Amino acid sequence: MGYGGFKELTPLDQAVDSVKALVRRRPSIVEVPVGDALGRYVAEDIIAPFDVPPFNRAVVDGYAVRSRDTFGASPSNPIVFRVKGFIGVGETPAYSVGEGEAVEISTGAPLPPGADAVVMYEKTRRFGDVVEVLEPVPPLGNVSRVGEDVKAGEVLVRRGVRLMPWDVAVLASLGLKKVKVYDVRVAIACVGRELVELDEVVNAESVFKKGFIVNSNRYSMEGLLKLYGFTPEYIGILEDDFEAIRDTLKAALERYDAILTTGGASVGKVDYTVEAVKSLNPELLIHGVLMRPGRANSVAVVGGKPVFMLSGFPVASIMGFEALVKPVLLHMVGAGEEPKPRIKGVLTRRVTTPINTRSYVRVRVYTKEGRTLVEPLALTGSGILSTLIRGNGILIVPENREGFDEGEEVEVVLLRSPASLD
Amino acid sequence: MGYGGFKELTPLDQAVDSVKALVRRRPSIVEVPVGDALGRYVAEDIIAPFDVPPFNRAVVDGYAVRSRDTFGASPSNPIVFRVKGFIGVGETPAYSVGEGEAVEISTGAPLPPGADAVVMYEKTRRFGDVVEVLEPVPPLGNVSRVGEDVKAGEVLVRRGVRLMPWDVAVLASLGLKKVKVYDVRVAIACVGRELVELDEVVNAESVFKKGFIVNSNRYSMEGLLKLYGFTPEYIGILEDDFEAIRDTLKAALERYDAILTTGGASVGKVDYTVEAVKSLNPELLIHGVLMRPGRANSVAVVGGKPVFMLSGFPVASIMGFEALVKPVLLHMVGAGEEPKPRIKGVLTRRVTTPINTRSYVRVRVYTKEGRTLVEPLALTGSGILSTLIRGNGILIVPENREGFDEGEEVEVVLLRSPASLD
Repeated sequence: MGYGGFKELTPLDQAVDSVKALVRRRPSIVEVPVGDALGRYVAEDIIAPFDVPPFNRAVVDGYAVRSRDTFGASPSNPIVFRVKGFIGVGETPAYSVGEGEAVEISTGAPLPPGADAVVMYEKTRRFGDVVEVLEPVPPLGNVSRVGEDVKAGEVLVRRGVRLMPWDVAVLASLGLKKVKVYDVRVAIACVGRELVELDEVVNAESVFKKGFIVNSNRYSMEGLLKLYGFTPEYIGILEDDFEAIRDTLKAALERYDAILTTGGASVGKVDYTVEAVKSLNPELLIHGVLMRPGRANSVAVVGGKPVFMLSGFPVASIMGFEALVKPVLLHMVGAGEEPKPRIKGVLTRRVTTPINTRSYVRVRVYTKEGRTLVEPLALTGSGILSTLIRGNGILIVPENREGFDEGEEVEVVLLRSPASLD
Repeated sequence: MGYGGFKELTPLDQAVDSVKALVRRRPSIVEVPVGDALGRYVAEDIIAPFDVPPFNRAVVDGYAVRSRDTFGASPSNPIVFRVKGFIGVGETPAYSVGEGEAVEISTGAPLPPGADAVVMYEKTRRFGDVVEVLEPVPPLGNVSRVGEDVKAGEVLVRRGVRLMPWDVAVLASLGLKKVKVYDVRVAIACVGRELVELDEVVNAESVFKKGFIVNSNRYSMEGLLKLYGFTPEYIGILEDDFEAIRDTLKAALERYDAILTTGGASVGKVDYTVEAVKSLNPELLIHGVLMRPGRANSVAVVGGKPVFMLSGFPVASIMGFEALVKPVLLHMVGAGEEPKPRIKGVLTRRVTTPINTRSYVRVRVYTKEGRTLVEPLALTGSGILSTLIRGNGILIVPENREGFDEGEEVEVVLLRSPASLD
């Protein structure tokens, strides 16, 4: 095949950092009802609108008193208080509490003025209009203070946070009905005259036999974008034609926050996508990166927007998404990488990778006789689909290594729980 | 408060196992377009409809030959073949290859009958109708065999697998347009006369002051169900009223695959939800479990369907979802637990938990001076909302421990990446 014509490939970190530095960090923002905000990235700091609790509040049923009046109380030496009345949940205090006075109070009710503590029923004896207190209560005893949980003005959720179910619940608790979130709209175009839309396929086997391919990259790219909380907008299949690609990309750059293409990006062959992007006066164009699979993966910045040009090979484009697309889109919304499940296991076979290249090896992790084993799946050859379905993990081999030996312990990013062969 | 009236609480594993054993394992199934199947659980094994590749295929450009005819070839002793024609991608072979014969072939084209290998252009010299082969090629050399990637009839994706972007892409590649997935419809009802719908709130602070609470559990439960690929159906707020709860649950049991309530479930007080479920002749009713927070969390099986009765306290219901709801729903779709990101860190403060109880402690994980530290957040008291937003991890203390010491290394389930304080 020969990569005779390839230019110098760029190390991955350098590619990502260069794009991050040039990309505008403010993608589209939409305001959505809090119930629709799950999994979205918050577009501005969300501030607590009031104190929680909004007043000093009893946390037990009992008597609101001045704590200092209870000092010295004991079962053998009870202190007597005059009960002025009762205050329930949701009521506004109608009494104030002075020396030797008490107000009966329900859990959740506001403390009346003057009182600074609550004596539990269990530590009292009631006789008509008076109550005996049998134990001292410290200042703020059995009281939840105003703002103890949340203070008015405090940042509840920072810009860039991806909203999880409990975050949404907290916003709802505070009466926040709408929230501004990023709506990173990413246009997806798939390049290649060999591609056929799934909807147009009558018989996929005959599609294969005729040398065509169902455009599956559309689905992997749409799925990855959705999985990470971004908004895919599929704009179709493009022929390998310079002008058609250029015109489509140019129009898409005006409408979307980012563009992602698959196919038509190669190293050392005529590359219509890269040539088309070049003609759009990019601030940056990185043609090919030091990753494997996916050395043809390329990226540009045009008018402050990223244009990701990924390989047409399914595994290479998926790895390109992880390595190039995701970090840049997360950066645009002010978010960091989310933690990934990892597992350590022993390699069942040697993995050889090129030096100075970050390799993403799909692996099958399984347990056998109590051991966790990591089987590397073929990177090359024709195991293209089977690698995707059989793999449940990714072994990332860093640039400074040329692989790992059989029997070596490696750490793997887990995509699914390991199968047990026991 | 006193839990004088509580019945015996059930250990968590026992509760989950008893429910799993009684729950019918076939929830609703829907057929969806492959592009909408992301994150859903496959309802039946998906079988490969044909071989991939569908024929023996050239993986390089060159000449299709009988490999044995090339044995002994070298640059100084080339073997001469007669070129019968050319076969391109998508073409049906019009020639067969006999002894000493070759057919020029493109990458991806089907091998003509008789040929079992391909010699790369680089290892040949062409002169008109003949080609000199300069190197032997082994049987199946430069050939991708029929079914090498995927075999017709093989299981591509097993029942119970949650579809990820690459799975969806593989199904699309094979021309599978629709897929049967589980549609586990879970009715959510929130019990409590103190609850107010977010939509009805004009001023949340005054809602709080009046002793009411915005129904935030609706949002945490909806969100958790969506996060794990189930279908929430919110049916509203129910008053603490035996008959109203019973009638609502009875109707919901006919329409949904599972029911989830929050609030109205307590230990040692009148509990309308549990009483209502009891009146529906459950096969199983577990009232209270040995977990903390969430000892009031309860679960029943009625007519083969699970009814989860979770606490009204936000953190307790969220932990109840993790501990009780998720394992049962995953079991219903034939799925296992997905791997979780975990991290080890050093406890900044002692954690004390009751023995024989599984405790779920929300923690804040952060790094400082290169160390990973785990700060336990208040389980009790009024830090209800702040615990939810500050926490980025969960420390699970198993039943056989009474906590962990300050300075001890613990492993934590990470909900978000740790913050760095450096």
